[in-house]
Amino acid sequence: MPTAPTDVPDLPVTYRDVAAAAERLHDVVHETPVLTARTIDAQVGAEVHFKCENFQRTGAFKIRGGYNAVSQLSPEAKDRGVIAYSSGNHAQAVALAGRLLGVDATIVMPENAPQVKLDATRGYGAEVVEYDPETTVREELGRRLAEERGLTLVPPYDHPNVVAGQGTVGDELCRQVEGLDVLLVCCGGGGLLSGCALAAGHHAPDCTVVGVEPEAGDDATRSFHSGELQTVEDPDTVADGARTPYLGDVTFPLVLEHADDMVTVSDAALVRAMHRLWERMKIVVEPTGALGAAALLDGAVPGRDRRIGVVVSGGNVDLPRATELFEEYDVA
Amino acid sequence: MPTAPTDVPDLPVTYRDVAAAAERLHDVVHETPVLTARTIDAQVGAEVHFKCENFQRTGAFKIRGGYNAVSQLSPEAKDRGVIAYSSGNHAQAVALAGRLLGVDATIVMPENAPQVKLDATRGYGAEVVEYDPETTVREELGRRLAEERGLTLVPPYDHPNVVAGQGTVGDELCRQVEGLDVLLVCCGGGGLLSGCALAAGHHAPDCTVVGVEPEAGDDATRSFHSGELQTVEDPDTVADGARTPYLGDVTFPLVLEHADDMVTVSDAALVRAMHRLWERMKIVVEPTGALGAAALLDGAVPGRDRRIGVVVSGGNVDLPRATELFEEYDVA
Repeated sequence: MPTAPTDVPDLPVTYRDVAAAAERLHDVVHETPVLTARTIDAQVGAEVHFKCENFQRTGAFKIRGGYNAVSQLSPEAKDRGVIAYSSGNHAQAVALAGRLLGVDATIVMPENAPQVKLDATRGYGAEVVEYDPETTVREELGRRLAEERGLTLVPPYDHPNVVAGQGTVGDELCRQVEGLDVLLVCCGGGGLLSGCALAAGHHAPDCTVVGVEPEAGDDATRSFHSGELQTVEDPDTVADGARTPYLGDVTFPLVLEHADDMVTVSDAALVRAMHRLWERMKIVVEPTGALGAAALLDGAVPGRDRRIGVVVSGGNVDLPRATELFEEYDVA
Repeated sequence: MPTAPTDVPDLPVTYRDVAAAAERLHDVVHETPVLTARTIDAQVGAEVHFKCENFQRTGAFKIRGGYNAVSQLSPEAKDRGVIAYSSGNHAQAVALAGRLLGVDATIVMPENAPQVKLDATRGYGAEVVEYDPETTVREELGRRLAEERGLTLVPPYDHPNVVAGQGTVGDELCRQVEGLDVLLVCCGGGGLLSGCALAAGHHAPDCTVVGVEPEAGDDATRSFHSGELQTVEDPDTVADGARTPYLGDVTFPLVLEHADDMVTVSDAALVRAMHRLWERMKIVVEPTGALGAAALLDGAVPGRDRRIGVVVSGGNVDLPRATELFEEYDVA
């Protein structure tokens, strides 16, 4: 069962925190564009607005939460530095946040992580500590490093300041497109989903906020419907950003209270959606980033005649990997 | 040597025509977004604004000129229908323009054109006439069909109304980003380049407008520098949209008068630029669409400390083809 990091403040997160994060992030992140595609509108019979966080700095929304969290540390904590463990987008987010704020960042990454991600994280000036995932538990390594060096852990989702930062995606989208009827948000650990649900609740109270998970990693969907925290260990899905085993102590209550529904999509539907976004919208989307679109295009969420927002969370996928996926799932 | 289609009005094209086209196109085409990327700005040491016509309807700028031309035909000509020959973006542009305006469109395409392009063109409601490129000269087939059926030819670039339509790309960009110092525009037959040069001349008279061609298809560059029309038959370049053999009777004088310079880039530089746009900006760009970016990233056009506009003209490339190119040119 999950245990909360010890330094998580036990305070509710509200829209006020999202709005404060938006001010903090104003000159730091891109206000990413919202794209539409008539062929997709025609297929769904609706008005679909894609919020393109794949165009965000570092190629994903994670910089929002990472920066918002690091920027609010005490001067002493900033002097000591931060640490994160991630093989994905959170690594680059914390590395960049550290560089922008003049805070040393240590990122714990598996030695078999793609070279391009190791390089990118170092490129943002972070110290990367590699470990052998066969012999090392990264949490233990991270905890040891944090203690030895007095570093503050920046968790990938389960922290109020991370949630508030990710919520600025929804805040921006609701300002860019008024009167959304439905908002589809991918869900791993629930940081993006809970933050966006807070924002939608403020700007468009009648908007139905739906979290989308891969079928194999359906813990949050089952947690949402049962009201009890469910877990999935190491789910087998192409959506590498949604392989988190459970919602967090901060995000689970927020998802329960502010999301309206949760659905899952198959990996096949996910890869089809990813391909369709590439082909029809000319945007590079990583598998996890296509979860919301997949729910809509696959019919998991009815959309006809609605005004729909879809968060495209990131675009960090290697072209060879994308090609492999398109071939494996026979979409071309 | 080129011969002008018989129905080309012998009138100069001015910014006024571009502005009129912009009004005509207002509710028809997307105002495409302008994207920036800090890593690219840092590399170039400049402020670079990418005008993303790969997000345009049909995946390329061509719909602008196609629609502008078809919409201004006489009611009689509209009743009889239009014809175009193209294996590329102009085919879909004229097909869609026809559908939007209720004008029958016949598109002459080689039978070995990619199935996806044949399908897309038919999908816009056009009649596709396939021919065997080994045994048939498409111009002859097109002329015969046009005569038999009384169809009006919509040329891909060498027509004042096509030029004016393509110029709306530059018009939009200059309104979205004020005070451009440099504007880089890819050049095949010169329709986009001359139209954009007219627009930049109006909005930003001090802006240096540079046309960019592939090395192997350097006819316009040599024409520009010599003042005499030069031709290249069937150039061997990956930039399939810039394989046109010469500038036209309409576009050559416009390029001479309104463009400030022309440069070429190698196919290797082109594929590198295309990859960089995919990787860093998460946008799908076809080879021809990366010409402007290649000139900048490869140093063919100095950019340091300037405010630079780059037209990304289209995104219609199959993923397997892109993968093949990236492998062939060893970028990954």
